[in-house]
Parts: sequence; structure tokens; C-alpha cells
Amino acid sequence: MLTSELKKMEQGNSIFEREVRKLDVPICQLFRDKQGRIAPVAFNPEGKPLGTKDAKQVALEFNQLVTANGNKLLRARRQNLNPAVGKRVAVLFSGGPAAGGHNVVAGLQASLGKQNTLLGVRGGPQGLLDGQLFAISGKDIKRLLNTGGFDFLGSDRTKIKSPEQFAQVRKVCAKNKLNALVIIGGDDSNTNAALLAEYLYPDVQVIGVPKTIDGDLQVGQYLPISFGFDTATKIYAELVGNILQDTPSSRKYWHFIKLMGRAASHVALEVALQTRPAIALISEEIAARKIPLRQIIDSLAKTVIRRCRKGIRHGVVIIPEGLIEFIPDMVGLLKALNEMLAQRAASFKNLSLAERRALVAAELAAEQAALFKSLPGYLQEMLLLDRDAHGNLQVSQIPTERLLIDMTAARIKEISPGTPFAANNHFFGYEGRCGAPSLFDAAYTFNLGLIAGSLILDNRTGYMAALSELSRGGKILALPLTGLINIERRHGKDEMVIAKALVRTSSPAFKFLAARRKAWSGSDLFTSPGPRQLWGPAARQLPISVALNQGYADLSFKL
Amino acid sequence: MLTSELKKMEQGNSIFEREVRKLDVPICQLFRDKQGRIAPVAFNPEGKPLGTKDAKQVALEFNQLVTANGNKLLRARRQNLNPAVGKRVAVLFSGGPAAGGHNVVAGLQASLGKQNTLLGVRGGPQGLLDGQLFAISGKDIKRLLNTGGFDFLGSDRTKIKSPEQFAQVRKVCAKNKLNALVIIGGDDSNTNAALLAEYLYPDVQVIGVPKTIDGDLQVGQYLPISFGFDTATKIYAELVGNILQDTPSSRKYWHFIKLMGRAASHVALEVALQTRPAIALISEEIAARKIPLRQIIDSLAKTVIRRCRKGIRHGVVIIPEGLIEFIPDMVGLLKALNEMLAQRAASFKNLSLAERRALVAAELAAEQAALFKSLPGYLQEMLLLDRDAHGNLQVSQIPTERLLIDMTAARIKEISPGTPFAANNHFFGYEGRCGAPSLFDAAYTFNLGLIAGSLILDNRTGYMAALSELSRGGKILALPLTGLINIERRHGKDEMVIAKALVRTSSPAFKFLAARRKAWSGSDLFTSPGPRQLWGPAARQLPISVALNQGYADLSFKL
Repeated sequence: MLTSELKKMEQGNSIFEREVRKLDVPICQLFRDKQGRIAPVAFNPEGKPLGTKDAKQVALEFNQLVTANGNKLLRARRQNLNPAVGKRVAVLFSGGPAAGGHNVVAGLQASLGKQNTLLGVRGGPQGLLDGQLFAISGKDIKRLLNTGGFDFLGSDRTKIKSPEQFAQVRKVCAKNKLNALVIIGGDDSNTNAALLAEYLYPDVQVIGVPKTIDGDLQVGQYLPISFGFDTATKIYAELVGNILQDTPSSRKYWHFIKLMGRAASHVALEVALQTRPAIALISEEIAARKIPLRQIIDSLAKTVIRRCRKGIRHGVVIIPEGLIEFIPDMVGLLKALNEMLAQRAASFKNLSLAERRALVAAELAAEQAALFKSLPGYLQEMLLLDRDAHGNLQVSQIPTERLLIDMTAARIKEISPGTPFAANNHFFGYEGRCGAPSLFDAAYTFNLGLIAGSLILDNRTGYMAALSELSRGGKILALPLTGLINIERRHGKDEMVIAKALVRTSSPAFKFLAARRKAWSGSDLFTSPGPRQLWGPAARQLPISVALNQGYADLSFKL
Repeated sequence: MLTSELKKMEQGNSIFEREVRKLDVPICQLFRDKQGRIAPVAFNPEGKPLGTKDAKQVALEFNQLVTANGNKLLRARRQNLNPAVGKRVAVLFSGGPAAGGHNVVAGLQASLGKQNTLLGVRGGPQGLLDGQLFAISGKDIKRLLNTGGFDFLGSDRTKIKSPEQFAQVRKVCAKNKLNALVIIGGDDSNTNAALLAEYLYPDVQVIGVPKTIDGDLQVGQYLPISFGFDTATKIYAELVGNILQDTPSSRKYWHFIKLMGRAASHVALEVALQTRPAIALISEEIAARKIPLRQIIDSLAKTVIRRCRKGIRHGVVIIPEGLIEFIPDMVGLLKALNEMLAQRAASFKNLSLAERRALVAAELAAEQAALFKSLPGYLQEMLLLDRDAHGNLQVSQIPTERLLIDMTAARIKEISPGTPFAANNHFFGYEGRCGAPSLFDAAYTFNLGLIAGSLILDNRTGYMAALSELSRGGKILALPLTGLINIERRHGKDEMVIAKALVRTSSPAFKFLAARRKAWSGSDLFTSPGPRQLWGPAARQLPISVALNQGYADLSFKL
């Protein structure tokens, strides 16, 4: 009966989830032994050492790791015929979820095999501190295969940094007789992995796996992309494509769409390449070319007007989440306001809004006061009122998409009052983090899991699993975490962290956008990439920006 | 080279779009002749006449149609061996877009064949008045097949109602020598189709095709659903499923998700059945059980608290777009405010917000004044300030999802102050209207096009194409439009319109929800239906509510 069939679909048993669990994902040939079974690979150092501008200081701080690994890239070219046995390995998720995390666990389990033990850590780094470990069963793996989310283990954002925390981790490792830890996370989590690897050396191996939908954890030819980026951008690109498809159907709306992705604009760039909208703002270009807010608005308004003269009263604008913090004069204004408020912290909080406004007008430099005045009232209020406990503005709370609409509307009224401009705003974020992995992410993460497991059975520590040449069968790599770390000023002090990869305006992906965008804004050339397919002829697509930046010949991946 | 390959993807040539155009959609066996070619079918009246409570008055108003058709349902059981030839047929989209519209055109073309001519109307009903017609080519059909949106023809919301408009349509039909018009639209557009069919009788045939993502154009066993509903709900269900999957990964957020669908809650109900969230509000139930706002909020707050006590600090609430207008005390308040403002229209507009508030406190009945006072400040302002030119409130502008979050937070503070409640809000609408059709919508609409074309070649007028028994090969039907029309009070006067189908609390779909929701709110039983698949084992899924309400044995469709 249908109703009993429907009851069985509860708790992750939709038709899709049941079918997708049966799907075989491709793995690199090197992971198959002669009988076609999955087997671990062995690694050898290759090429010159990796290192940032701060390599020397990093070598001092991470003395044991750098001495042991020489910051050398590892590459696997053969199977490991003498893998370690009897290892106890724990795996955890750190930070925001990204599609494919579950398959990292599945790949890890597959390469560790039955002669080693895989434990899961519940609740991320905090769960590790709390000793929330459990043995992962074959039934667990079957259930999580190819599914989205981090719910199998959960996650959190705790950073393990203090001496007490390190000591606590050592205690938990000892209690659980752990030989290795696998940390699945973004740049900060992998920085944490490096710190732990150094601290626990040589007792417990620590391996990182590169996760983030933002795409800002990537290392040139060695690590084309982090996992989760492909799924998130395919989800956003479908939605943007749907909305683009709506515009010439409805013939009257502009849509301003903000896309998740903290600082870097990789997500916005990829979605623009997938969909070809009228306008895509790229934060890094705006910062590099020092384009002030006024000019961004002016350009938006003129595009609306130009299209309208051609009879096109619609369009789509893609906006990266982190935009505000890349617009040079906005950065200056925010900084000036922060400093002003910090100096007067005590008295400021007793001032009325009107008094605060007067202060701003009187004390800011003329240009900054003018910029402030040009902002919509609600944003002015936000800048003066909405501050956290430390007096800092919550920049992520600024409704950039609304701000751009309102300022564009005002500018249109100034220069071409009759031009119709009806605009909707959207923000796509959470929708993209926990979707079912694309076929690429499902395969990529399973392979990353195989690599992480292989590194452990090859007795490596302080490495991040990596895979490149994604259109040519896959090149199995491991990057020394210490080779990626540089020194950055954060919260007022120098910190050793893995550098975030921003969009480079010299990259092939950006250049493609730059070469085509005039045509895209002039008329409707958009394309609608549709829902990501797990089966059939449209399933094997790489991110376009990755294929361009890596110099691949086409968009299909091959592992 | 990759860049030239990427340029070719512009203007609707993504990998997905190129592949999906090649996809064969299933059609009912009856549409195939012995050589396997597509051929039109012939219809015969069947069963008792259809009719609403107002059948008598409708028969007076639509005298010619009712006399000719006897309000009889038509069914096709055989092919049409003597189809009309030389017909000139025009097709138009009316109202908001819905996935599958393009395939209606393709199906129509396929059944009309080469011995008749298909014209497209650009820009909907207004385009018809303006005579914006063009011949549709085979190349056009190839290009639009299985793609989303209404952009091939465009659409608008003009209602053809006045004598001048009718005369203008007759003129355009004469000028273009039209024998038939096909109107693809929702309930209002099909009402329009009936009016035109009567007016143009017997010179020009008019056939309606049931479109709307809202799902409120359905006729029991004869028309299980309008097209576009399946795609929209599958798109929303994927997003809701992704967010559900996010909740136990992040472990700290509630998400309040409003879903498009004007009045009826079919979309919310279907998405809830697809995903099994903690809470799904169904407007029709709230109206039927006369549940006041206070009680809705109280129940939301208690669910949050109950789950929190079990360690579940997250959840998803699904909210139908039209909710506010179904909550009995809110309806009363809005009505009272409207009447108050109407009586004092002239003086009211000069009052300050404070004066308006005072007036409300003084003049509303005590209960209504209390309800008003319980609303968040921004909503109070909206109710007193944001009014259109006629003084009417734009109910669709009320941020219901935000309102429920804020009131729930306040209620939690009252009854369980320590309970954590961090909530995000979402509204999914445009994303669902123009997506690539699901395999069901692609097939359903192509068949509806075949039916519309067959009706024309069988010399019928005043009918709406319909298809039922979707899991059993398809039953080809046509519904007399006059049999669906009733009299409703709209904008202060009686109008003859096709009745909107609301969710019935006695329906199997609602009952399934009602039977399971306690379990869903008690713990995480959600399921994540994933992106809709056009290929592979998960592609052939019917909407769950349709399968339940039609009494099908399973969820797969068979045509």
C-alpha cells in the first residue's frame, strides 16, 4: 500500500536517497589491486619543497613536522604492498557542512580495510575534546554513502589552540589508543590539523582533508578545489538559471542574488560562468581596480538603462557575500567609523541616533561623510547602531543585495527618471551546503578518503590529502600542511594560518568572464544548467572555473 | 579548446539543456498509430454532465457552449481517423510561468501535424490583442523541447473581459484566419478561455490547458493536478531537504521557510510530504479549525521547547504563502482595519503613526485591539502605513516567516526563558516557476499538448485538456469549462469563475500528514528528496499528494 511505502521513506529513505546509495562512484585506477579490490597506495616525495613567504618562521614553529617532511609534496605512483595494520583512526568534521563529507568517511573506511579500526568523533573538535568517539560500522557506511550533510558525525567550530586543549586532545587520543586523526575542514581547520600534528608528533598522525563550499582552499596545480564547492555552486547555478529563465518569461523583474562564500568570490564567479547573467560582481576585481561604491552603482544603473532601451526590462545581478569588505571606500568608511566609535566607546552608547549622525558629519573626512550620506537610511542606522559586544559592526548582516537595489534605483531616478526598474532580492546559502553531492563531489571525496587512509597506512603525518588532473584519471597527492602556512594579521595580532585563496584577476576563469561579460549584459545570453544529475549523459561535469584554471580540455571529469 | 566550447554553451546550451532536448518523453499508447507515429485521438461524451452549484446561471451566461457540449466530459478511446485539416491554431501563455509550458506547445505541434498550422502569440493575452502572432517552426520546437520557462512566447496577466477586448480578439482571429486558440493558464485564464469560447462560438474554437505551480486548478478524479506543480514542489522539496539535512549537521538553527502558492496550501503540503519536517502549517486546516494566531504561535513555541529538552535545537517549519489570510482572527483584524481606514480615508492619511495607533486602540473591539498589540512593531506599522492606492493592505507583502519567528521567540521567552532559539527565514518562489521540467511535467505537458491538438482536430471548443490515471497508462479526457465555473464574490461583486481547489482536510494527502506529523515533530524523521533526475532510477516520481489523493498504488507514473 502507498501509505506504508511512504512511511518507509522517512529518515533519509526517499526514492533518491535509496537509489543514490547504490551508485558506484569512480575511483583512480591506482586504488584497485589486481583483483579489482580497493587497496591503499604508497607515497614518495616529489619536486621542490612547498613554502610561503613565511617559510622560515613556520619551520621554527613547526620544527618536528618540517624536519620530518621537508615540506615536500608527496605523490602516489604505486600501491602500498606493506600497509600498516592495527591502526586506530578517528575522523571528525570541522566547520560548516559541505557535500561529500560522508564519502570521505566511506573512502577512509575502504582504504583502512578490516585490519584497522575507524572511529567517528561526534560533534566536531569540541566532540574530540569531550571524547565523543564511537566505532563506525559497515552498516553506517552503507547508509551514509553518497548522501549530503555532515549529520552522520555532526560538526562544530571550536578551534583547538590553547595548551590546555592540546593536552586534552592528547589525553583523549591516549584513552582511545588512537594512532591517527583525520580532520575534514576548511583553511582554519587544516591550520588546526597542522598544529595538532606538530603537538602530537610522533605519537598520533594527523591528516587534513580540504573541505569548503567557498572554494578558497585550493593550491594551484596541486589542489584544484576543495570538496563541496562543486555541489554548492551547481545548486546555486540551478536556482540562478531558473530565475534567469523566469526573467524573459515574466519580462519585468531584475533579480539581485547574493551567494554565500564569505570573503572570496569563487562561488559567484563559478555560478556566473555556469549561467551567464547580465552582471556578476567579483569582489577581488573591485578591490584590485579600486572601484568605489558610487562607480559600482553607476555602472549597475547604466546597464539597467541600456538594456531597457533595447526593450529588455529584466536581468540578473550576482553578488558575492563578502562584497562590502572589498569596496575600497566602504572599507575606509567602516574602518573610520570603527575607530571613531572605539575612541568614544563610553560616551557613544548614550548618544541618540541623531547625535550619532551629527558626530559622523562633523568628524569624518569630507569624502567619507559624503559616502555615508549617500547610503540608504537603514544602512546608516545599521552602521551606527548594530554593533556587537566589542563595538564591531557585523558586516555579514549588511543586506548587500538590498543596498545595491536601493542605490541603483536612486541612481536610475537621477539619470533616467522614466526607466522602469522592479527588483527582487535573494540570498542563497544554506541551501547549498548540505545538498546531496554532485557526482563529481561524491567521487572526489571518496577518493580523498582513500588518499587520507593511504597516508595513514603509509605512516605519514602533517599532510592534507589532494587530488589533481581530475580530467585525466587523477593524480594522487598529499600536501605538507606546513608548506601552506603563512603569517597573517588577524584580530590585531600575527597568526600562522593557511592562506585563503582568493580569485585572481589573472586567472583563466576570471579572464573568461571578463572577456564575455559585455556581451552578457548587452542581451540575454544566459544558460540554465538545470538540476545536477547523478545518472545519465549530463552527470560528469567539473566546475567550469576549475577546468579553466587547470587548463583541462573539457568539462568532464575522469577518475 | 575549452573556451570555445564554453562560448557555445551560451543562450540555453548548457550541457544539461543540450542533453535534455534529446530526451524522449513517454506518451499514452493511444497517441501512437500502427506505425508508431504520433496521431490525434477522437473524443466521445461520457458520464453525467459536470456542473457546480451555480450550473443554472452559468448555462444562461454560456448558452451556446452549454447547449453544444451539454457540460459533458469527453473521453478518448480511439484514434481520430478523420481529423480536420487546414486549421490555423494559435497558442499563448497566460499568467506566471510554470515548468512544461514549452512541451505543451511541442505536443500541440506534434498532434496538429503538417496538415495544420501552429502560430505562437508573443506576450500572452495582451500580445493576442496586439496581434503578435508568428508561425512556429520545426526548429523552434526542437529548441524548446523539455526546457523550462515561458520565454519562447512570453506571458502576461491581462484579462480579456471587456466587450472592446472581445471584439479586438475577433478581429485578430479574422485577420490571422484562426480556427482555434489554445490558452495555457491557471484558473482565471481558463475562465477567460470559457468566455472567449462562448464569444467566438462557433467561428473559433478555444481550448484551455491547466497550468499553475500552485496546484489549485485540479478537478478530482478528472484532473489530478495542473502542470508545473510537480517541478516547483520538487525544486522546493530539494531545497527544504537540503536545509533539513543542514540542521543536524550544524545543530543550532531553526529554519522558517515560506513557500510560494498564493491561497491554497497544496505546495506546502506536497513539500512536507516529500521532506517530513518538524512542522508544516496548512492554511486550510487553520481556517477549518478556527485556530487563532496566538494558538499557532503557542504550538510553535512548545514544539521548539519540547525538542530542545530532547537535545534537538533545530528544526524546519514550512509556511504556505497565503497563511495570514486563513488565520481567523487575523482575517477579522485585517477586515476591521480596512473598514476603519475606508471610513476615514480622507482624514486618516494625515495622521501620524502614533495617532493611528491611538485610533486603533480606541476603535477596535477589545480582542482585536489586543491581537494588534501582540504583533511586532514593524507589522503594526505595516498594517497602518503600507497601503496601496485604494487603501488596501498588500497582504502578500507581510513577511509571514519573519513574523512567526519573532512571535515564537517572544513566546518562548515567556514560557521557557532559557530555551535557545536561533532561526533563519527563507522564501522560495521564483526559483520554482521556471526550472527545467521534471520528467513527469515534461511528459504530462507533452501529452496535454497532444490532447489539446486532438480536441481541435475533433472540432471541439470550450474544453480544457485533462489526463488522469497517471500511474496506469493515462486516461485521455477533456473537461467542459462551463462545468467548472461557479459564482464567487470578488472585488465586491459576483463573478463567474472557475473555482479554486483548496486543500481538503478530508483528503488522503492531508490525512497522511495529520497522522504522521506528531512523530515528525518529536524527532528527526526527515528525508531529503534530492535534485530531480531526468535520467536513471529516481526519475519517474509523481507528486506524493497526487498519488495519495488519486488512490494510486505507488509513486511512479506510467504513460
